[in-house]
Amino acid sequence: MMDRLPGFRDFYPEPIPHPDVWSSDARHYLFSSWRTTARLYGFREYDGPPVESLELYTTKSGSEIVGQLYNFKDKGDREVSLRPEMTPTLARMAAAHERAYKKPIKWFAIPQLFRYERQQKGRLREHFQFNADIIGEADPAADAELIALLVDSLRALGLTSGDFKIRLSSRNAWHEFYTRGNGAPEGEYAFYQAVDKIGRDPLEETERKLAAVGFRFAAVRDFIEKGEPTDELRKVLDNLDARGLSEFAQVDYHVIRGLAYYTGIVFEAFDVQGELRAIAGGGRYDNLVKLLSGGKVDLPALGFGMGDVVLMELLKSRNLLPQFTSGTDVFVLIEDQSLRFESLKLVQALRSEGLAVEYSLTPMKPDKQFKRALELKSGFSARIERDASGGTMARLKNLKTREESVVPVPEAPKELQRKLPA
Amino acid sequence: MMDRLPGFRDFYPEPIPHPDVWSSDARHYLFSSWRTTARLYGFREYDGPPVESLELYTTKSGSEIVGQLYNFKDKGDREVSLRPEMTPTLARMAAAHERAYKKPIKWFAIPQLFRYERQQKGRLREHFQFNADIIGEADPAADAELIALLVDSLRALGLTSGDFKIRLSSRNAWHEFYTRGNGAPEGEYAFYQAVDKIGRDPLEETERKLAAVGFRFAAVRDFIEKGEPTDELRKVLDNLDARGLSEFAQVDYHVIRGLAYYTGIVFEAFDVQGELRAIAGGGRYDNLVKLLSGGKVDLPALGFGMGDVVLMELLKSRNLLPQFTSGTDVFVLIEDQSLRFESLKLVQALRSEGLAVEYSLTPMKPDKQFKRALELKSGFSARIERDASGGTMARLKNLKTREESVVPVPEAPKELQRKLPA
Repeated sequence: MMDRLPGFRDFYPEPIPHPDVWSSDARHYLFSSWRTTARLYGFREYDGPPVESLELYTTKSGSEIVGQLYNFKDKGDREVSLRPEMTPTLARMAAAHERAYKKPIKWFAIPQLFRYERQQKGRLREHFQFNADIIGEADPAADAELIALLVDSLRALGLTSGDFKIRLSSRNAWHEFYTRGNGAPEGEYAFYQAVDKIGRDPLEETERKLAAVGFRFAAVRDFIEKGEPTDELRKVLDNLDARGLSEFAQVDYHVIRGLAYYTGIVFEAFDVQGELRAIAGGGRYDNLVKLLSGGKVDLPALGFGMGDVVLMELLKSRNLLPQFTSGTDVFVLIEDQSLRFESLKLVQALRSEGLAVEYSLTPMKPDKQFKRALELKSGFSARIERDASGGTMARLKNLKTREESVVPVPEAPKELQRKLPA
Repeated sequence: MMDRLPGFRDFYPEPIPHPDVWSSDARHYLFSSWRTTARLYGFREYDGPPVESLELYTTKSGSEIVGQLYNFKDKGDREVSLRPEMTPTLARMAAAHERAYKKPIKWFAIPQLFRYERQQKGRLREHFQFNADIIGEADPAADAELIALLVDSLRALGLTSGDFKIRLSSRNAWHEFYTRGNGAPEGEYAFYQAVDKIGRDPLEETERKLAAVGFRFAAVRDFIEKGEPTDELRKVLDNLDARGLSEFAQVDYHVIRGLAYYTGIVFEAFDVQGELRAIAGGGRYDNLVKLLSGGKVDLPALGFGMGDVVLMELLKSRNLLPQFTSGTDVFVLIEDQSLRFESLKLVQALRSEGLAVEYSLTPMKPDKQFKRALELKSGFSARIERDASGGTMARLKNLKTREESVVPVPEAPKELQRKLPA
């Protein structure tokens, strides 16, 4: 039997049939929640192609990125790649038509992203990511607005400050530290990468890397431990405090973000119970739009990305995923086959009123139909019955309370709509 | 400036900045409408990977299909393809775990699909498609249920029987006609393809193709014109009639569907004003699950696909797309900078109540803020003001009726929620 490609996921309706596949219901729940919160914050949705020219990624990240990309040559001999991240597409799209939009541009997307490293057995080659970005505002007020969105996106899923925190840091603070320590410009990115790996690299490795660019580990550690917020960070903290969100944010200079293009405040949301596992990350990239537009458009920008895989694990471990059902409002029982067509008419009438309706497509024993209605966790059953005068009535039954009522068939849709929770 | 790859689309928030890009708002509207209607019919959402092994498509359609696929070799030297259609993925997924689901399985998906023919300048290489399928039910009652879903998916978008019809046909009817006419088995698919092209091929071409498999055009034309429904089609028509949907369906043996794998009833939704332009198409493919599961799972199945491109054009031409706005419920005006933090607190409180809120991130002249609130078509503005005693109140203004009210700041969220349309 043919299987899916390694590293890709199949999404099935709940209850999922096998631990090896994913829940399409949970995915829909997550995406809907992301969309709703983004809209509360005035972010508008955009999307671009899942395939872009390879150059879009190498321009931004250098050619060493290619080893991690799901890249290939298309039939027109173009070097292309499945998108590994959304920011280059966003920068390209914003640069192309920024004049049509008032600044700041607040946009979000939920792209599927791809990667392909040769040695990554058992690792996923795709995931979905909630991306939110603000383009055209240099003030830290934009950083605060974006971080507040991140906090509320996680809170909307039931997570609290006992589950996650936002660690705030600043490339500017690190740049100043590096400059004050007489670091040479050509070593600065290597320095950031060494700091990024503190706690993950062995201590000697960190010391060696820092020494190579002229720094002692003790000085770096002291700077982190002191954690003195820059003016910029102070503004963000005060802003979040005004919103009542200060319990979610803390300065932590361990965070520096691996990517080269960040320019200002950077941050990560992390799982406080999961050994600081990162749930989301982002920051300012004030030079990227200019770089990717060939110098034509120069706009400050910032954004974050939040993946579905870690988040879904987190929600599961905290028991925060709702129980997903078929969503059937009404199961229409067809017991008397001479009433099948009249029952189909009722099915149609109920659906036309916005009710989700199931029924047995073919004749089935009454008890089996009823069992199916219960399995689907239908709110109500509806059955057309003949009355004494040979006419028909609809018998409606609340399948939780077992309350029944009998109404004229044409009144059944409105009656059920009234009885069902909104 | 870097551009997207040819044949791919960028989706921007409305109002779209250029005729060359697409509306993300219209896309979201369409997808939401598809999802809602599918759920009313008890269909559950699934999804698979956008990349599958090439073999999944060549097994089903033969190696000649490769010329139309967006296929390539991945970094692990696998022959793979971006999915050109959803049915093979569905058959693969259903076959893998069908035992976990009660039959019939009713599933839908909204995949992005891809193709790549070398000579197709200016044509799109991707589109989105609404796919709905029923697996595990051989009775025509399933065909009727699926066709009713197709009708209601289009009606939910505001289209009427003046806009579209479903043309019903039957591979069985054509098979019987072909057999009765002593057609040889090896010529049957060529015969179907000739019929499929009637009206599109020149008449002589049709006559030549039909003669090659032993048929006269006149006989074929008579069969189509007579349009005698098979028992199976009659059952579907009666079923649709019971639902009150007969005005949407008609037997039309011109329809035969190009693909080899259809086995029973086939159908197309077409635009009645657009020279019979096809909006959607589908039918029974009772042998495909068996074929794609290597003989392990044998289940009858049927489904349809409806693309976003033709449908979007149709909706535009009929003026059926709603006017999309930013969806801002409340614009918080911050005129007095000493009240900025209190205003941010209000912004947060409003969003926590589920209201979509915008405000100016940085100080801006009051009239500019007000202008921005109007541009965003916000329902209300809210402004914190100092009262005579030095305390603060919230002034709420309905931006359509211009009605104003002044309430204590903590009461503003509930007050606005009450005033805004649900």
